[in-house]
Amino acid sequence: MKKISLLLLLTFGMLHAQQDVQVEDQIKSIYSTALLNGQSYPWLEHLSNQIGGRLSGSLNAERAVEWGKEELDALGLDRVWLQPVMVPKWIRGTFEYAHIETSPGNTINVPVCALGGSVATPLAGIRAEVIEVQDFEALKKLGKKEVEGKIVFFNRPMQADLINTFNAYSGCVDQRYSGAEEAARLGAVAVIVRSVNLRLDDFPHTGSMSYGKLSIRKRIPASAISTNGAELLSSMLALNPKLSFYLKQNCKNLPDVQSYNVVGEITGSEKPDEIMVVGGHLDSWDLGDGAHDDGAGVVQSMEVLRLFKTIGYQPKRTLRVVLFMNEENGMRGATEYAAVAKSNKENHVFALESDAGGFTPRGFSIDSTPEKLAVIQSWEPYFEPYLIHLFVKGGSGADVGHLKTDANVLAGLRPDSQRYFDYHHAANDTFDAINKRELELGAATMASLVYLIDYFSL
Amino acid sequence: MKKISLLLLLTFGMLHAQQDVQVEDQIKSIYSTALLNGQSYPWLEHLSNQIGGRLSGSLNAERAVEWGKEELDALGLDRVWLQPVMVPKWIRGTFEYAHIETSPGNTINVPVCALGGSVATPLAGIRAEVIEVQDFEALKKLGKKEVEGKIVFFNRPMQADLINTFNAYSGCVDQRYSGAEEAARLGAVAVIVRSVNLRLDDFPHTGSMSYGKLSIRKRIPASAISTNGAELLSSMLALNPKLSFYLKQNCKNLPDVQSYNVVGEITGSEKPDEIMVVGGHLDSWDLGDGAHDDGAGVVQSMEVLRLFKTIGYQPKRTLRVVLFMNEENGMRGATEYAAVAKSNKENHVFALESDAGGFTPRGFSIDSTPEKLAVIQSWEPYFEPYLIHLFVKGGSGADVGHLKTDANVLAGLRPDSQRYFDYHHAANDTFDAINKRELELGAATMASLVYLIDYFSL
Repeated sequence: MKKISLLLLLTFGMLHAQQDVQVEDQIKSIYSTALLNGQSYPWLEHLSNQIGGRLSGSLNAERAVEWGKEELDALGLDRVWLQPVMVPKWIRGTFEYAHIETSPGNTINVPVCALGGSVATPLAGIRAEVIEVQDFEALKKLGKKEVEGKIVFFNRPMQADLINTFNAYSGCVDQRYSGAEEAARLGAVAVIVRSVNLRLDDFPHTGSMSYGKLSIRKRIPASAISTNGAELLSSMLALNPKLSFYLKQNCKNLPDVQSYNVVGEITGSEKPDEIMVVGGHLDSWDLGDGAHDDGAGVVQSMEVLRLFKTIGYQPKRTLRVVLFMNEENGMRGATEYAAVAKSNKENHVFALESDAGGFTPRGFSIDSTPEKLAVIQSWEPYFEPYLIHLFVKGGSGADVGHLKTDANVLAGLRPDSQRYFDYHHAANDTFDAINKRELELGAATMASLVYLIDYFSL
Repeated sequence: MKKISLLLLLTFGMLHAQQDVQVEDQIKSIYSTALLNGQSYPWLEHLSNQIGGRLSGSLNAERAVEWGKEELDALGLDRVWLQPVMVPKWIRGTFEYAHIETSPGNTINVPVCALGGSVATPLAGIRAEVIEVQDFEALKKLGKKEVEGKIVFFNRPMQADLINTFNAYSGCVDQRYSGAEEAARLGAVAVIVRSVNLRLDDFPHTGSMSYGKLSIRKRIPASAISTNGAELLSSMLALNPKLSFYLKQNCKNLPDVQSYNVVGEITGSEKPDEIMVVGGHLDSWDLGDGAHDDGAGVVQSMEVLRLFKTIGYQPKRTLRVVLFMNEENGMRGATEYAAVAKSNKENHVFALESDAGGFTPRGFSIDSTPEKLAVIQSWEPYFEPYLIHLFVKGGSGADVGHLKTDANVLAGLRPDSQRYFDYHHAANDTFDAINKRELELGAATMASLVYLIDYFSL
């Protein structure tokens, strides 16, 4: 009896060890293929340099949709399709310009850019005194008397001693998103927002903003100023609180237009009704090429399916890549994808998003039950040779977050975050800021997690 | 009895928890100070942009010595001094030039740079046929008959599927270091070496080389070619094995000159005879500014002492910063420092080197007994909030490695390695390739380890 137990144990141990080796080999093969014969980098080169910035509703966004579908078609997937979705169309217009005027005729230009969704200034621009605040509380304390007729300048910097720069982002982004609404309620004529950037430089960073429930006639122009510009304006205000600021921009909101999510899938060999999604967003802001945000996530997600094809791994479940449209200023693609999935009663057991830049991957944040998180954490040894060490509980991503159920697992790739906000939503988010190996490692890391989820049927 | 044990256990537990909190607070203070009020970045800006490339024996190297001493003096350390050391002096000269000639007059320029220590070509240059090889074994197989009178082209690329790029470097660098010696023994007239760079680009990467025991008259010129240049040459050789290569360079070896290690210390409050060293190398190659190699290590090491001063932590042991001279082409500074330490019977209990670039720190490689390594690994939870996760057995660094004893602990900072060889020894190793936060995180990570070593008297 004892002998049999021992034999069973040994056999089980050997099988287990064999399985381990098989899994290790498969993951090694994923990483080697990504690094030696990867496609993510040339794909991103095309998306960034040949197509470029692709704000929802723009011609470039439609080019990106066509390109995405063509490339997925060429991979020989089981199914590729476009999922229609109406998206907002905001255009930057033909000029945006600002200066500080210390005395009549004495002006210093500062780099600004309209925030996405902002209204224009009058054609002749706006000239007004400036009131600098750090947050909404300080603004409200000042009250209508101090704010009315002025330009409100939100100048709270990102907190540099937070290690994860996304936490520093969260601590600041309210100024950009709701600053115009809050200031307009107190009678301000415009808002200038310090760029959400940890570095001192000359790039203004755009991003989405909302007027909330403010009626159309109460909406005021909102513009971002570079961090160096913000520092300059603040120091000049300290010397002369009565200085004027001049702002001119002719951005515009237009009616919604037709666009698409791009979707492709490999049908599962054993459980085709269980769907695993990998995705990023195809739209980007208009100032740069959107190489990091989120061209990187797009090509890494596409690469996951290509890697599976290349190494010959046939997933048991259906593996779907979704290139979401309109993450930046409306989230319409993600909302539509989730709505269609729900109405089709699709079972999304897993979804993984890459939307934090194409930098060296460090791990994942996982949105699941504690039990499933523990299973994923038990896979850490498989990732150790690739220096992937972060498996933390946390949000997945803005796009795949819409697919959350009690049972499924959502995840977000977590690359090194130190450089992300140097480029985020600015004119320097371009292909040259991408390191080929870092991008490829991200794709391989995503593919490895998807593989493990599929292989162990989590 | 049981109650007393429980009480003791609780008291011990509470003391332990209190100590934990104190240590955690101190480390938090180190990181916050480095990120909010760091000095490493402005220091590196000066060293890179105001002084620049500083090859041993150059005027810039002497400027760097003066600058280092001045800055350490300004920190109010207990002792700052220059340690004399004679260093080699090799100069690049006034030209280096190469082209591929497919037929008479039909030439294509390729980017090259002389390897450090190489002899010049004749003034009129060298024109010869090229023989391409991947390694010394292949070269020896070809033999004198195939090699004599030709230029040997070593073209083994770095292995891209190795995750740690330093392993890929180790697998290639023999071509650069000993290629000329090996080829000269078979009668070659010059060597061209593929730059040790994972990326395809147009920067030739220099680096040290040696003629071994080859007599002076047998020495042949050695030059690095950019990776794009290497790919071009290789593909053209495939089409026309008889093409000529033309190389011209007038670099020169001069007699040794006087230089210095720069040393500063905070005297230990309890055990002044136990010395802890942090260091990097002050010299750099001449093509870029040496911002990553090893300006970063220099300013991070200086920052460790400044951080201790700023947060008011008085080390129990003596903490010494050493800015080593001549790591790149002779290691004279490290050799001299170790020799003086030995003759003075100094007890170096710990030494930490930063010489792997100013990128996001991932952890340390530790050269110590398994017991001491285990103690350091037990500190991992202190580092977790800062995403420092690598505590592996391994070499420390080229400079502090000379201080090894059976009892002491040596360590090397291990930053993310993906981008390092894009810049290593090339003209693009400049200040703009440095990210402020990544640099600062490295300094804080070093300071935290030194603090723990000191606090727990490891």
